Amino acid sequence: DVPHDTAVSGWLPRPIREVPLTGEIRLPDRALRPEGTVVRIGPATIGDGTINVFAGPCAVETREQLFASADAVAQCGVVGLRGGAFKPRTSPYSFQGLRWDGLDLLAEARERTGLPIVTEVVQPDHVERVAATADALQIGARNMQNFSLLTAAGQAGIPVVLKRGFGVTIDETLGAAEYLLNAGNDQVVICERGIRTFETATRFTLDLSAVAVFKQRSHLPVMVDPSHAAGIPSLVEPLTLAAAAVGADALLIDVHIRPEQALCDGKQAMLPTDFAQLMGKLEMLAMGIGRKMG
Amino acid sequence: DVPHDTAVSGWLPRPIREVPLTGEIRLPDRALRPEGTVVRIGPATIGDGTINVFAGPCAVETREQLFASADAVAQCGVVGLRGGAFKPRTSPYSFQGLRWDGLDLLAEARERTGLPIVTEVVQPDHVERVAATADALQIGARNMQNFSLLTAAGQAGIPVVLKRGFGVTIDETLGAAEYLLNAGNDQVVICERGIRTFETATRFTLDLSAVAVFKQRSHLPVMVDPSHAAGIPSLVEPLTLAAAAVGADALLIDVHIRPEQALCDGKQAMLPTDFAQLMGKLEMLAMGIGRKMG
Amino acid sequence: DVPHDTAVSGWLPRPIREVPLTGEIRLPDRALRPEGTVVRIGPATIGDGTINVFAGPCAVETREQLFASADAVAQCGVVGLRGGAFKPRTSPYSFQGLRWDGLDLLAEARERTGLPIVTEVVQPDHVERVAATADALQIGARNMQNFSLLTAAGQAGIPVVLKRGFGVTIDETLGAAEYLLNAGNDQVVICERGIRTFETATRFTLDLSAVAVFKQRSHLPVMVDPSHAAGIPSLVEPLTLAAAAVGADALLIDVHIRPEQALCDGKQAMLPTDFAQLMGKLEMLAMGIGRKMG
Amino acid sequence: DVPHDTAVSGWLPRPIREVPLTGEIRLPDRALRPEGTVVRIGPATIGDGTINVFAGPCAVETREQLFASADAVAQCGVVGLRGGAFKPRTSPYSFQGLRWDGLDLLAEARERTGLPIVTEVVQPDHVERVAATADALQIGARNMQNFSLLTAAGQAGIPVVLKRGFGVTIDETLGAAEYLLNAGNDQVVICERGIRTFETATRFTLDLSAVAVFKQRSHLPVMVDPSHAAGIPSLVEPLTLAAAAVGADALLIDVHIRPEQALCDGKQAMLPTDFAQLMGKLEMLAMGIGRKMG
Repeated sequence: DVPHDTAVSGWLPRPIREVPLTGEIRLPDRALRPEGTVVRIGPATIGDGTINVFAGPCAVETREQLFASADAVAQCGVVGLRGGAFKPRTSPYSFQGLRWDGLDLLAEARERTGLPIVTEVVQPDHVERVAATADALQIGARNMQNFSLLTAAGQAGIPVVLKRGFGVTIDETLGAAEYLLNAGNDQVVICERGIRTFETATRFTLDLSAVAVFKQRSHLPVMVDPSHAAGIPSLVEPLTLAAAAVGADALLIDVHIRPEQALCDGKQAMLPTDFAQLMGKLEMLAMGIGRKMG
Repeated sequence: DVPHDTAVSGWLPRPIREVPLTGEIRLPDRALRPEGTVVRIGPATIGDGTINVFAGPCAVETREQLFASADAVAQCGVVGLRGGAFKPRTSPYSFQGLRWDGLDLLAEARERTGLPIVTEVVQPDHVERVAATADALQIGARNMQNFSLLTAAGQAGIPVVLKRGFGVTIDETLGAAEYLLNAGNDQVVICERGIRTFETATRFTLDLSAVAVFKQRSHLPVMVDPSHAAGIPSLVEPLTLAAAAVGADALLIDVHIRPEQALCDGKQAMLPTDFAQLMGKLEMLAMGIGRKMG
Repeated sequence: DVPHDTAVSGWLPRPIREVPLTGEIRLPDRALRPEGTVVRIGPATIGDGTINVFAGPCAVETREQLFASADAVAQCGVVGLRGGAFKPRTSPYSFQGLRWDGLDLLAEARERTGLPIVTEVVQPDHVERVAATADALQIGARNMQNFSLLTAAGQAGIPVVLKRGFGVTIDETLGAAEYLLNAGNDQVVICERGIRTFETATRFTLDLSAVAVFKQRSHLPVMVDPSHAAGIPSLVEPLTLAAAAVGADALLIDVHIRPEQALCDGKQAMLPTDFAQLMGKLEMLAMGIGRKMG
Repeated sequence: DVPHDTAVSGWLPRPIREVPLTGEIRLPDRALRPEGTVVRIGPATIGDGTINVFAGPCAVETREQLFASADAVAQCGVVGLRGGAFKPRTSPYSFQGLRWDGLDLLAEARERTGLPIVTEVVQPDHVERVAATADALQIGARNMQNFSLLTAAGQAGIPVVLKRGFGVTIDETLGAAEYLLNAGNDQVVICERGIRTFETATRFTLDLSAVAVFKQRSHLPVMVDPSHAAGIPSLVEPLTLAAAAVGADALLIDVHIRPEQALCDGKQAMLPTDFAQLMGKLEMLAMGIGRKMG
């Protein structure tokens, strides 16, 4: 019911650009599209009521690691593969990703599994090249108020997963989404991945209330990344189930074949066997609440 | 001097008092009772895998208001009635509760509905008298590091619902629980009700990860209060479902027959009709995840 | 126009109690007393523009420890001695203070040094007895929304130092002060001691902006406790100087003769020699900004 | 490929690039240069014990506005002019700055006043052109973990003012500085401008403890921006004095000739007359603590 007759947008009517310039949230506003936006990433439809799981390793490290992880999550019924080729890291001495080689490996993994790929883009002049390969761009939490990057990503012609910054409010996140929408792209998924609080038992505090608030205020679908939020694999299962129950349209989950050897955020990755169990439970919960897996 | 021969306690072996004095969390530790503690409030059993809903008005205001609210929630299948007779309020000019008269009304409401009552106690020398009427004591978020009150409540001989302070960590909450347990009472329910963060879209940020962490670290059952956390009635339903999915043993929900006239926190209370819908959805979700309603 | 005809209170005109009951901050409002309130603790006058330092050990541990610490800070020119006889501790197994014996030792230390003493009170039924000995009561951060305690302390007839809770806003702190003022006591000092934030390099985040805001919004004098905020002795000096520069009327500083042996919060205490240096620098800064040491 | 033979760098010994790759903070470490780094912005020397004030409007709006503001702050004895030509804004509909025209106006203002200019750069491919005009680059809080931008700015050959992100820890800020230093530039000033907390009385919570911690952990000089932190002009004076007292090497202050007409963050700007008074007080305080104005 939501026509997408140009590549990704075609949605924004011209008059929208003529509205008076204020600081208000406008294009992501639920009122503009009460039925909600459906974002298509490969064959997956995010925002139509289904629960869609994207999984894979935080970073692409080797062909063997990526393919084994991709195969594992594909067998569990995910709708897409996540994997970072460019990794923004707090320290310049940490592993920064395989970069363009990593992107090529992701394309191979897509060939192999049939899964669309979501991968992060970190600077404006990379957008075109990353968009030529990826099925959806990810804007990371640290770059989500990098407005040059948002504007470039909004013009890329493919869907964008916008992660909420860990010090950024719900409304500021919608402000960042506004940059993407205003650049002509309505194929935007907002991703909650935890905020900074005083609590140190978890790496960040996953703000599941924000999922419900995003759904009330905006027509954009919402994804949840419990892996980065918790930083602890054993918390990913309960938080995934809670995210689905609170109304998330999609999940983004770190799965690694050998978490203890991961070059980036390995401590938080699930083993494929645990992930398979989680997918089974998620499907049961989905039935309970009258939703289907994507 | 603290006898352990009653139903509610009898748990703490004497040698526990002889352990060396350190600052560690000890008695709430999951390792001490891996199977978990079951807390009995009236006929309800909290901690045995069932999902138990306590509901009612934030404050007891009038006989008519309390009875109407109590009847409404009783019809929805709750296991207990909540209601505040003593209300700790940020301003001395706000309604402070009906006090002992409110407690008498709660006792009448129990007669009428058969529901056990949970109500807050605010000072040590009230504990005995409140405990003579109530089925469980509630320690409020603002008093949860009032160690004199904790010690008194721990000796009351009835179950205690301990709310996490909104600036208090998970481990400090277990430290407060330690005061209750150390006073001879193992019938303690920890209640997550939101923490203070920079996000202002919700009144507090409900920390559902904390529920999972509490369950991993401690044998005590965990309750969630989505009403006080969100401060917005429309968020109570998704947060209740998420709380159940993340593993909460119990819910504490504000229901008021006329929220707009409530003397305390009325804005956050649900209408009985909305609450009835919520209970239906919760039951469906419970089936999906293989749990039963308490 | 504001008569002070009794020892500490006598300030609140009767009509104030007849104002309509709303949740607003009223009695601490700067508008009520634009010239500011002067709080007298022993011979010290807090709120008249002078900079007043209270120092001493976090907890009274032994006669020898208390007297040596008291002598040391007395020689440095402080206006008062701090020391805890009742210690609210996160764990029931931590040292809880010498209690009434500690209070007796504080009285002896006052005899010895001539310094007025400020000490914490932790439960309502202790107020009268603590107030019979102490020169000022301290309400700790964990009890500052324990409204029964506030009401009792407000009726004690001696000044009260009200510490801001670490999860409590500026306006809620003024709400807690309202309880004290409403009980008939205008001799209230608000104490900023750090709030909970995501930053972990310091124990809490000292909110020095709050000092300026308190001074703008309220006529009550403001104290700063850099020791508990920072949790690191080497930060106490720069934070003390900053507190004076931002407009604090008083400082509360942990000094211990042997910090490494302290039974409570020892890590944060300064050595007397470092404290002496700090006092010298503070005096220089005071001259620079046209203020005098109290 | 990064030559170190110019005035601004020449610091980093070649072997530094051969140290083993770990995630530790290395180049900003105080131990590497215990005497501290002096950063030269025009004739100003930041980090040699002097107190250096940079002031001007948040955004360059018109020639008349910029020149009047620049003249006003020049007369007050500042060492540099701040002004934004590129403004990263939360909403795409807010004023985004005059961009290259604004940069040209800043160059004219430097001609006119003799003051060096500090201005923000927002994307990597702007760095070279902005650096050709500005005396120092500013990395804004929202871009401070935009590592592509940091790397580009570190290679620009002019000093960089690195603002701490409002959700970023002290150590992560030093991690961002590491990117700049590792790119061959030791002329880096860290700027504290407030963090996100639950307190809403101020726009952010200025973390003055962080200034002291930065000075202890790192050899880099530290600047404080009280204007953006507080968001309230009347708080800028006390916070500036406190920043100097806690050990800041520099201040960054919003001054606008007509704050009520400002196109960006006008509410927080000081009037030139108030700023003149502040400068007088700051000089007095500096004398008190044995420091000189830069």
